[in-house]
Amino acid sequence: MQFAYTNSEIVRQLIKEKSIAILPIGAIEAHGPHLPLGTDNILAEALANRLAQQVDAFVLPTLPYGQVWSLRHFAGSINVSNDSLINLLCDIGQSLSEQGFKIFVIVNGHLGNQMALKEVTRKLYDLCPELKTFAFFYPGTGKIIEELRESQAVHHTFFHADEIETSLMLYVAEDRVDMNKAIKNIPNVPEEVDYTPMSWEQFTDVPVLGDATLAAKEKGKRIIEVAVEKMANLIRQAEKERTQS
Amino acid sequence: MQFAYTNSEIVRQLIKEKSIAILPIGAIEAHGPHLPLGTDNILAEALANRLAQQVDAFVLPTLPYGQVWSLRHFAGSINVSNDSLINLLCDIGQSLSEQGFKIFVIVNGHLGNQMALKEVTRKLYDLCPELKTFAFFYPGTGKIIEELRESQAVHHTFFHADEIETSLMLYVAEDRVDMNKAIKNIPNVPEEVDYTPMSWEQFTDVPVLGDATLAAKEKGKRIIEVAVEKMANLIRQAEKERTQS
Amino acid sequence: MQFAYTNSEIVRQLIKEKSIAILPIGAIEAHGPHLPLGTDNILAEALANRLAQQVDAFVLPTLPYGQVWSLRHFAGSINVSNDSLINLLCDIGQSLSEQGFKIFVIVNGHLGNQMALKEVTRKLYDLCPELKTFAFFYPGTGKIIEELRESQAVHHTFFHADEIETSLMLYVAEDRVDMNKAIKNIPNVPEEVDYTPMSWEQFTDVPVLGDATLAAKEKGKRIIEVAVEKMANLIRQAEKERTQS
Amino acid sequence: MQFAYTNSEIVRQLIKEKSIAILPIGAIEAHGPHLPLGTDNILAEALANRLAQQVDAFVLPTLPYGQVWSLRHFAGSINVSNDSLINLLCDIGQSLSEQGFKIFVIVNGHLGNQMALKEVTRKLYDLCPELKTFAFFYPGTGKIIEELRESQAVHHTFFHADEIETSLMLYVAEDRVDMNKAIKNIPNVPEEVDYTPMSWEQFTDVPVLGDATLAAKEKGKRIIEVAVEKMANLIRQAEKERTQS
Amino acid sequence: MQFAYTNSEIVRQLIKEKSIAILPIGAIEAHGPHLPLGTDNILAEALANRLAQQVDAFVLPTLPYGQVWSLRHFAGSINVSNDSLINLLCDIGQSLSEQGFKIFVIVNGHLGNQMALKEVTRKLYDLCPELKTFAFFYPGTGKIIEELRESQAVHHTFFHADEIETSLMLYVAEDRVDMNKAIKNIPNVPEEVDYTPMSWEQFTDVPVLGDATLAAKEKGKRIIEVAVEKMANLIRQAEKERTQS
Amino acid sequence: MQFAYTNSEIVRQLIKEKSIAILPIGAIEAHGPHLPLGTDNILAEALANRLAQQVDAFVLPTLPYGQVWSLRHFAGSINVSNDSLINLLCDIGQSLSEQGFKIFVIVNGHLGNQMALKEVTRKLYDLCPELKTFAFFYPGTGKIIEELRESQAVHHTFFHADEIETSLMLYVAEDRVDMNKAIKNIPNVPEEVDYTPMSWEQFTDVPVLGDATLAAKEKGKRIIEVAVEKMANLIRQAEKERTQS
Repeated sequence: MQFAYTNSEIVRQLIKEKSIAILPIGAIEAHGPHLPLGTDNILAEALANRLAQQVDAFVLPTLPYGQVWSLRHFAGSINVSNDSLINLLCDIGQSLSEQGFKIFVIVNGHLGNQMALKEVTRKLYDLCPELKTFAFFYPGTGKIIEELRESQAVHHTFFHADEIETSLMLYVAEDRVDMNKAIKNIPNVPEEVDYTPMSWEQFTDVPVLGDATLAAKEKGKRIIEVAVEKMANLIRQAEKERTQS
Repeated sequence: MQFAYTNSEIVRQLIKEKSIAILPIGAIEAHGPHLPLGTDNILAEALANRLAQQVDAFVLPTLPYGQVWSLRHFAGSINVSNDSLINLLCDIGQSLSEQGFKIFVIVNGHLGNQMALKEVTRKLYDLCPELKTFAFFYPGTGKIIEELRESQAVHHTFFHADEIETSLMLYVAEDRVDMNKAIKNIPNVPEEVDYTPMSWEQFTDVPVLGDATLAAKEKGKRIIEVAVEKMANLIRQAEKERTQS
Repeated sequence: MQFAYTNSEIVRQLIKEKSIAILPIGAIEAHGPHLPLGTDNILAEALANRLAQQVDAFVLPTLPYGQVWSLRHFAGSINVSNDSLINLLCDIGQSLSEQGFKIFVIVNGHLGNQMALKEVTRKLYDLCPELKTFAFFYPGTGKIIEELRESQAVHHTFFHADEIETSLMLYVAEDRVDMNKAIKNIPNVPEEVDYTPMSWEQFTDVPVLGDATLAAKEKGKRIIEVAVEKMANLIRQAEKERTQS
Repeated sequence: MQFAYTNSEIVRQLIKEKSIAILPIGAIEAHGPHLPLGTDNILAEALANRLAQQVDAFVLPTLPYGQVWSLRHFAGSINVSNDSLINLLCDIGQSLSEQGFKIFVIVNGHLGNQMALKEVTRKLYDLCPELKTFAFFYPGTGKIIEELRESQAVHHTFFHADEIETSLMLYVAEDRVDMNKAIKNIPNVPEEVDYTPMSWEQFTDVPVLGDATLAAKEKGKRIIEVAVEKMANLIRQAEKERTQS
Repeated sequence: MQFAYTNSEIVRQLIKEKSIAILPIGAIEAHGPHLPLGTDNILAEALANRLAQQVDAFVLPTLPYGQVWSLRHFAGSINVSNDSLINLLCDIGQSLSEQGFKIFVIVNGHLGNQMALKEVTRKLYDLCPELKTFAFFYPGTGKIIEELRESQAVHHTFFHADEIETSLMLYVAEDRVDMNKAIKNIPNVPEEVDYTPMSWEQFTDVPVLGDATLAAKEKGKRIIEVAVEKMANLIRQAEKERTQS
Repeated sequence: MQFAYTNSEIVRQLIKEKSIAILPIGAIEAHGPHLPLGTDNILAEALANRLAQQVDAFVLPTLPYGQVWSLRHFAGSINVSNDSLINLLCDIGQSLSEQGFKIFVIVNGHLGNQMALKEVTRKLYDLCPELKTFAFFYPGTGKIIEELRESQAVHHTFFHADEIETSLMLYVAEDRVDMNKAIKNIPNVPEEVDYTPMSWEQFTDVPVLGDATLAAKEKGKRIIEVAVEKMANLIRQAEKERTQS
């Protein structure tokens, strides 16, 4: 149920029993010639909507701007700071808590947001003792991704506009993918990238990090399903513990 | 052209000639039983999209959270602080300027955001001398609203879920309006509201401030058209001055 | 009663019954060759003192620095940021509340301060539930100004060193006005000024916005009286509500 | 020359040769039954005006609010934080520098402001390399105070509403002093006051720290003269170095 | 070479050729009954000193306070915020850059600091374009730890006072380890710990997460050597690139 | 007892009776050719350790970075801002209070930190009503220094790498002093240094302010003993008052 399309009257009636709010967050970020700038938002929304069907929750409007420091110099990227994200999300969390929500689920489609989100969950933990906040970025999908991936990973944690992310998009928004423009780009990512800040244009000309031509809808479907199931289980567990205590 | 659905490659090619970015911003706010919580976002998007058709611009994804201090205690409202809005929007503006945009147009559908937006335009004026920032909230519509309005205005500046706003929604998103639930609510707004902070629940039980039953699609159409034309003229003028200088 | 000239002992005895504090705030801002830089402070003090005679209040020392972004490049203007104003005034408000004051009235003589003041009143509303804060800028004077004004307004909200403001000064501090230097200056204020930041030197050579030669003491008297009466009525009403509850 | 009473036109003409701005700052603070709450402001203004007569300078309007942490719980004190003071004064300094001022002299009448003022002078040193900022609190008066004082000092650095401060007030604003209410109060100030925060009400019932009955106008005159001469000499020296370099 | 024990004269002479500064950072954090509170500082120093022997660098004094949110409720932990760490470390980095250092290496012994350190490296990247900043937390040790570990890991990323960390301490500071008090503690770490904030006392009574009884000096030696070699190689590479460009 | 080398278990048992925490703080600052950069840290630690032997306290790890604005341009100095220090120390104080400590003693070896420390003690006074915070910088040593000093003081408050500070170092860390390099440097410190910011390189070529050749271990011993005794007495007094109330 989309929170933006419901109304005040309905929320007032349902809030006591329907006290989970899911916020999708992504980014506007260069994803090469075959994927749109809003890829991470589309994926976060797809995950959030599927998750809401599994648990009794409202889906909040997507926060479409994220921290894209590493790709900020590629055309089309819009970068916001960790501090700005943290403050806005803490405001939202506090407001949700005052409204009576008990579980705040941030479904993130963009790796670069994770640090800010971790800080948000901790700040809200102290600010709103009644609210439990989750921050999810494809939880539980490590194994399935390893199984499905046919190309070699360019880097141990980044996946960006590659076989995997393109597969996810084929599954949730096929019409936003132009497979004719999908490319294979295997740059040599310097080892120091894990220890010192690097703008990605320092090691690649195009904002694609892998072989997008190997993408397949079915792969995306499998990964999305695993992530949604993992999130649903964790929320159901939290809901159970909350109502029992 | 929706920025989120275009891609990095296209932006790289077009940015020099297509250097106007339009950002819709609204709020999640209680609008009574006949209008959705996301009303201000829907209206901001409608204005932004129509404006983009008139001037050669990208439409950025909507920032759907706003400052709703006055109605924060009504069910469904999500309130964020002026400071959080200002910081996030300044980040976005700086990023747009670094990307090569020359004109940043914030199309606002929610009165409560205006103070933050004014501060944003001024901060960006100093931070990004190359960028011109506009903040619009239904510009130039004072007269047409006075002409069209059949009910008396409850307050000299607020219009909220009333004849006017409901008319706007009927024109741009009729399926999101439930006219069966539209009500007339004429609370006695205390005079001191202009001089001291008041939560609206202090003077009204429902978050409707006027007579929504008098709403009509045609009224909304006229107001939207006036606002869009005014914005388009101002932007065309700015564009002309910029390219001439 | 001037707070600065009373003493600790007296305040200790009177604070329970005399719990209204009035703070004048203005600015140091270019007002052309016929009015002093401190015009807005002089006017704010005049309003505050007259108001204090009507309600049982202390008048605090004037805060003489304000936000003068638009005229900051004219000789003599001193500009402070909204954030600095907000923080200082919130400190003052909190201190007044701890001292036992119940009503904090900010009498503002400078339009540019209004945004900061609105934020102050809201922050104090949350920080000090026992304190009621008003921010006044010539309340209730719209009609009388329209009636009295002989020259056409240069802009729908600005009045600056013009017929009106000069009249106010003639009434409250005639010796600070040099009518021999009063000029008529009717610049063409661009329409975009309402939507994008403009330094006033972009459209006028002198910091006068209207016809100061038409100023008259009697006009100033009428406007001041209306403003003071409006403020006094609102405060008396608030005082009544407070003591009844 | 009072800056607030001059005008933009005059400043524009004089700023190149008259590039010293003097800002008096004090506080609203309990000073017992014989001295007004605004004592520190009155003294700062008196020093500033006398100083301006010696050097060619503008006197800015007094900033009448200061940091009164130690006496904040006495009736009538208004306390503002160091951070708020620092930010406001840095704004003022930057604005003065943009206006063309070269020397910014802060004449302080309240010991509690000194820490904030030191930080201000250092921040402005980095922010405005063209501006030289002084912060003065009765410079060079150590010896003369020792000579004149008949009562014993209650504490090695505090002087508050005592023989000395009352003498200063008798000299500069005799009509604001009620010597009939002047008292002798010699509390036992705990030694730890220099090392751990103490609210003064922990060791004294009245906000007087010494023997005010020994105050004499002539004592005040001598101290003021020494302070003014010291400030004038330092400014003249700085002015000389500046124009020579 | 310990920076704190060298002197200004020597630094002045060597800074051009010896332009690498290594900062150890750890935390004061509960590590059970067999390891001291300063374990992470001791380890960071040991790594930093060994690294300095491999590359021509100064070792700065250890910053001994870190972010220990998860264990803040265990006796002896001292927790500082990410924001405080970030600001202090950015100050240090800027100062080093102004002093002429070219490479700033933060050697971290405490996982909880990693988020703050990543932000620091990025902020310094923008603030000090001449300075290259690294943040290391046992780089390159994943494989060797897997090989050496005899007990099962309690969690995929945490290692705390367990077989591994105790081994590290046995190698670098055997006299600070009391193996008689080493315990095996295998709590059931809830899966949700990766997605929502949990204080560790929610799932364990003692701040040990694994089997410390299996610790061995030789294991620690191997891991330290791998980490030091990895850091040295990356710094040598950066040094080479810098001097070549 | 060094807090860093004790462990969680011991703290848990002792905290109720051993509730005093001593934090040494100094700086990394140029001290000429005969004293190390870490001089102020070494001295702070020496004072802290001696103090801990007199009162039943834990000694926390030294915070080795301080505010060295005045000497920041001399080789080897590392400068951090007052704000960064204040925030970090307030975090530490709050954490100590949550752990159960009742008295927090900051033993400072660097004059430049005093302003930040005063702010810290006041902020903690409000944040942690249960915690009493002291900030000490050689308390009670004024007279003994005057007695012992053979050279004239270069300035009324600064003592830096001179007879006095070198004597202190000879007593507590003789092996860190190179008396062969000790020099006499008596620069002409401009009078304005007390009223306007000056970088010390403006008046001296070397970061020594006095005659270090006159240093003697015995002088240092006497000063340290006086300071330690003064601190111990004040803490014992506070401890007594606390346990009695």
